[in-house]
Amino acid sequence: MSRVVTVAAAQVGPVERDTPRSDVVGRLVAMLAEAAGRGADVVVYPELALTPFFPRWWFADGDPELAGFYDDEVPGPSTKVLFDEARRSGVAVCLGYAERDGPHHYNTSVLVAPDGEVVAKYRKVHVPGHEQHEPWRPFQHLERRYFEPGDGFRAHRALGGVVGLAICNDRRWPETYRVLALQGAEVILIGYNTPLHYPPDPGQDRLASFHNNLVMAAGAYQNGAWVVGVAKGGLEGGVHSLAETQVIAPSGEVVAKAVTEGDEVVVAACDLDLCDRYRRTLFDFDRYRMVEHYSLLTSQRGVVPPEPQPGVGPTRP
Amino acid sequence: MSRVVTVAAAQVGPVERDTPRSDVVGRLVAMLAEAAGRGADVVVYPELALTPFFPRWWFADGDPELAGFYDDEVPGPSTKVLFDEARRSGVAVCLGYAERDGPHHYNTSVLVAPDGEVVAKYRKVHVPGHEQHEPWRPFQHLERRYFEPGDGFRAHRALGGVVGLAICNDRRWPETYRVLALQGAEVILIGYNTPLHYPPDPGQDRLASFHNNLVMAAGAYQNGAWVVGVAKGGLEGGVHSLAETQVIAPSGEVVAKAVTEGDEVVVAACDLDLCDRYRRTLFDFDRYRMVEHYSLLTSQRGVVPPEPQPGVGPTRP
Repeated sequence: MSRVVTVAAAQVGPVERDTPRSDVVGRLVAMLAEAAGRGADVVVYPELALTPFFPRWWFADGDPELAGFYDDEVPGPSTKVLFDEARRSGVAVCLGYAERDGPHHYNTSVLVAPDGEVVAKYRKVHVPGHEQHEPWRPFQHLERRYFEPGDGFRAHRALGGVVGLAICNDRRWPETYRVLALQGAEVILIGYNTPLHYPPDPGQDRLASFHNNLVMAAGAYQNGAWVVGVAKGGLEGGVHSLAETQVIAPSGEVVAKAVTEGDEVVVAACDLDLCDRYRRTLFDFDRYRMVEHYSLLTSQRGVVPPEPQPGVGPTRP
Repeated sequence: MSRVVTVAAAQVGPVERDTPRSDVVGRLVAMLAEAAGRGADVVVYPELALTPFFPRWWFADGDPELAGFYDDEVPGPSTKVLFDEARRSGVAVCLGYAERDGPHHYNTSVLVAPDGEVVAKYRKVHVPGHEQHEPWRPFQHLERRYFEPGDGFRAHRALGGVVGLAICNDRRWPETYRVLALQGAEVILIGYNTPLHYPPDPGQDRLASFHNNLVMAAGAYQNGAWVVGVAKGGLEGGVHSLAETQVIAPSGEVVAKAVTEGDEVVVAACDLDLCDRYRRTLFDFDRYRMVEHYSLLTSQRGVVPPEPQPGVGPTRP
């Protein structure tokens, strides 16, 4: 059986605050049709693909506009036409959305088989940003107000291999890739919304593209996995976000990349057997990982510096 | 007090099998003098700086040539002139060497204050390669025959900040940087010997430079640390090794890089306060690390894939 999975990374351009959900889903359907025509086995949409990136706005609890950004189920009523098209095309779908589960809210991604079965569901673990309104910012990043963290990373057998899901800020943390790779993940599907301006340290703004690639390329190489990073990009709600959707091989090399900031489908044939080039050599975890010396990774959340001691200070005048 | 540490990365060119130890140390002294003249607080030499990279050759147990590659103490008799010069110049020294400790042997790096005090001693944890002679290889990589692994990563107060040491293959493992950064390491000093040809998968050869930078840049950025990577490079014993000594800022950017494959001193002024640009924002570990979901990192050494389950296979003909 072929171990080549053809992945369509479906970058989504701006979704404005007053854009009807049906319009957004219509755009996703159009990209799914294009992906199917280009031979895709799976189409991957970004984080919060159905709505604007609403954590940039502060809402009071119970605000009906806020409530309207969440979906109770995906596939569900608002996404039925998308999954109907997926079934017709025989294409699997990975989609990020704001999930409401009774009183709980998550930043969620699902992988759905062509027949509509939810093969994997992942709730974002590394929820960035802040909890309270911070008026000094030109725009908010209230993910920690609107989403609870999920309950961990799980890899799943899917797409003829082993697949892991992650979302946006998860990609900056090497723990994300490693926990998935330890479960055998060969393809890691990641959607993101990344403003080009980072209010806590604007000095990082010029590096947004570099950092986006750096963390995903390192995650791919150091784990011998394919990484698919899919953006919601462009100027949305007055905030400019990074596009640069990309598919990265287990070598860390970008094999396909978007060149616009709008709706754009990027297709790559991903040979899952390439993973073993790294997993059976340099990164043979069972042979080379030294877990007995990693205990701080799980025993300690923050930094605990060493006790002060006599040492070499800068010694030149 | 200034938080700028001026680091001299002293790349070492080939050291041949018949080169007297005193000649090698003479080259290191010359680079130390250059580093001091350029204002260095510390000079960093590569892994196994005093000898050729002898794990490329198979030796029987007890071979006197093999025994001659190890040092019982550093500073010690063979390196006295180097540390005498360091004292005169007021420069700290980080040096990699093959260490013999009674019946034990390690791939070791020490950080020595100008007054000769050993401030930090590190024995390589991620020992790569193989244990037995493998004649199919054009050259051996017998580190696992000649060295035991060390007992872990420890950060130390030194150079006016917090310093961590790592060696060669350690730099490919994100766990290395993270375990050091959890102890507050602001500067991570790494020496390496990296053959350009990788016999287990020659397909990786063309990527040696890219991978070298990728892992160190990601380690720097994801931990908000300075990373100093120092090569023993060039054609040594018929094997061509990567040079590309480089100093990487907490942004992940290369701020200084060698342009030869021989003895070459690269100097960079490293402002340790830049670390906080990342540690107090995006990578505020205490606020954002989700240790409760990292348990596999330490509970499991190798890959344990999920049980087979019905899933989406490649569905297109």
